Amino acid sequence: MKKFLLMPDSFKGTMSSIRICEIMSECIGKIFPDSIINSVPVADGGEGSVDCFLTAVGGKKVEVRCKNPYFEDMTAYYGLINGGKVAVIEMAVCSGLPLVENRKNPLKTTTFGVGEIVKDALDKGVEEIVLGLGGSCTNDFGAGFASALGVRFLNAENKEFIPVGGSLSDVCDIDLSNIDARLKDVKITVMCDVDNPPYGKDGASYVFARQKGANDEQIEFLDKGIQHICNVAKEKLGKDLSSLRGGGAAGAMASGVVAFFDGELKMGIDTVLDVVGFENIVDKETIIFTGEGKIDSQSIRGKVISGISKRAKKIGAPVVVIVGGAEGDLSVAYDIGINSIFTINRLPEDFSVSKFKSEENLKSTFENVLRLINI
Amino acid sequence: MKKFLLMPDSFKGTMSSIRICEIMSECIGKIFPDSIINSVPVADGGEGSVDCFLTAVGGKKVEVRCKNPYFEDMTAYYGLINGGKVAVIEMAVCSGLPLVENRKNPLKTTTFGVGEIVKDALDKGVEEIVLGLGGSCTNDFGAGFASALGVRFLNAENKEFIPVGGSLSDVCDIDLSNIDARLKDVKITVMCDVDNPPYGKDGASYVFARQKGANDEQIEFLDKGIQHICNVAKEKLGKDLSSLRGGGAAGAMASGVVAFFDGELKMGIDTVLDVVGFENIVDKETIIFTGEGKIDSQSIRGKVISGISKRAKKIGAPVVVIVGGAEGDLSVAYDIGINSIFTINRLPEDFSVSKFKSEENLKSTFENVLRLINI
Repeated sequence: MKKFLLMPDSFKGTMSSIRICEIMSECIGKIFPDSIINSVPVADGGEGSVDCFLTAVGGKKVEVRCKNPYFEDMTAYYGLINGGKVAVIEMAVCSGLPLVENRKNPLKTTTFGVGEIVKDALDKGVEEIVLGLGGSCTNDFGAGFASALGVRFLNAENKEFIPVGGSLSDVCDIDLSNIDARLKDVKITVMCDVDNPPYGKDGASYVFARQKGANDEQIEFLDKGIQHICNVAKEKLGKDLSSLRGGGAAGAMASGVVAFFDGELKMGIDTVLDVVGFENIVDKETIIFTGEGKIDSQSIRGKVISGISKRAKKIGAPVVVIVGGAEGDLSVAYDIGINSIFTINRLPEDFSVSKFKSEENLKSTFENVLRLINI
Repeated sequence: MKKFLLMPDSFKGTMSSIRICEIMSECIGKIFPDSIINSVPVADGGEGSVDCFLTAVGGKKVEVRCKNPYFEDMTAYYGLINGGKVAVIEMAVCSGLPLVENRKNPLKTTTFGVGEIVKDALDKGVEEIVLGLGGSCTNDFGAGFASALGVRFLNAENKEFIPVGGSLSDVCDIDLSNIDARLKDVKITVMCDVDNPPYGKDGASYVFARQKGANDEQIEFLDKGIQHICNVAKEKLGKDLSSLRGGGAAGAMASGVVAFFDGELKMGIDTVLDVVGFENIVDKETIIFTGEGKIDSQSIRGKVISGISKRAKKIGAPVVVIVGGAEGDLSVAYDIGINSIFTINRLPEDFSVSKFKSEENLKSTFENVLRLINI
């Protein structure tokens, strides 16, 4: 009996990873009706990550009341998986850019709600928290998040306040003594797929704040705020975050989670592979299908596909890649454990035409790939 | 050890079938260095057919002096294959459209030279002649061809002449008594890939004479000439050609070969399959690769691919199709014996862009198909 593992990334702009899994499953059912299929749509920590994990391993979607980016009440959700031991939270659900469409302002927005979600998960008794960063509207270093969990930020007058992007420079001291005690035994894994440090020209503010609504002057101000709180963290907590790879993720919230809660920053794909227990569900008879919108000789070394291939290679499981486009010399792909790469373009058409046919093109291509495997 | 048969048609406008075979062979050598490869580039009877047969089964290219479409001397060639027993002749070599680029006139051009080539092959002792029709500049019913081989066309004054498209109506009688005697024991197989009858609205003149240089009035005149000689053939030789499928091929030369020499009209692909001894070189372990520029739900029932698939299905050999484009519902393909269909478009690009990358796209796609087979 054939065994398949479906681990596609989304095809940006055309199909979600969940939809791709659905189409692939349907095709497999047709060509290999008696096969075993594991669907693990790949989450990158951004919007949709909770649904990806729930699709992959099952679990429960939990609704929770919390603050939105402007400290207003809202209903958000997170996922409880692995028998309720692990909570999967995407920060975008209450601090995401789509929530502030007409009032973008990273000087004022907060990640406070994300901390409230974590508290709810702690109430449920979780042992591990997977925190997806991505798609944020904030630039607050996760100070709001930390405040909700008991971290006290003090200003020059030693008064406690909840810092936002625009008031990080006012932080003079940080007090961790009131942190929710349950967090001591809970591991926080932070999914982040960017390499940016917290501040500087490659940092959170300069690279990401413009799309969150900041102008040049504000970006400079935000960057100084992040740099300031990093200095405070270094002085008061002994944590040097200045060159933390990925520390700039989600308005430098990644840095805050490391500084205050000893969170571990991890690539999204590695988190997914660990959470689903990749080595337990794959053997060398398993054919793994992955893919993404487009690969070239550079991106092949990138995140999802190479992340999967490296671990599949150790097991000896073949990896077949399905993409929207493949460019340049991809022979390096074969070296890192990829068996073959197929593109879904059934006709020589520009993307402006073919993007509307993505689903049928994927279906048609994938069915033929399966038929060839079945020779 | 893997066995492969390569039988691609040309990708019109981008790659010849011979070039495709070369690329495919090269890829196979890389992925399956110890395999057995049979390359049979598909000929359709038109230009390049002799080279296809020589590539497929080996043999000798013979040069021969003969008349061009205007009865001028030229050097043409044909192929001797199967140990010299079979001559492969493409009529376009001395009666093709490229030979009259600046003086197209189907009222005046002749197929005489093709008859001379046949005589040369008879001098070499061949037992069978494969005559490829296609790409002609003539509309002479093959009367020139027949004249060169001893058929006598007589006018109202009982004078012998060599009819051309414009003088077919002058034929009053046909005398077969002087035909080259060696032709009695020689089979003539006519490769023709069109269905058109010799005359009428779907006939040779109305459908093909315009591209050979005829205007409306001339087309009507040419059609009457073909109809006239068909009537003479019926009356004098007892051959009713009026609804002969394919009889309109090469300016109705196909009808002439049937009328005067009992030639057998055959689809190009069937001729190729027979000449190479398809059933002898394929078993159910052989993976057959074929392909063409583009297929859709209509064309899949067409010539090359379905011709190969039908005969492969009887043997149980899988057929994998590589195309430049695939459109619409192709599930009918699987019913007629096709295993799978892959397209070579590595990026979502319009044909105006991708046509310049055909070779690298084919190479990349085919290599991945082979790698998947090698899973």
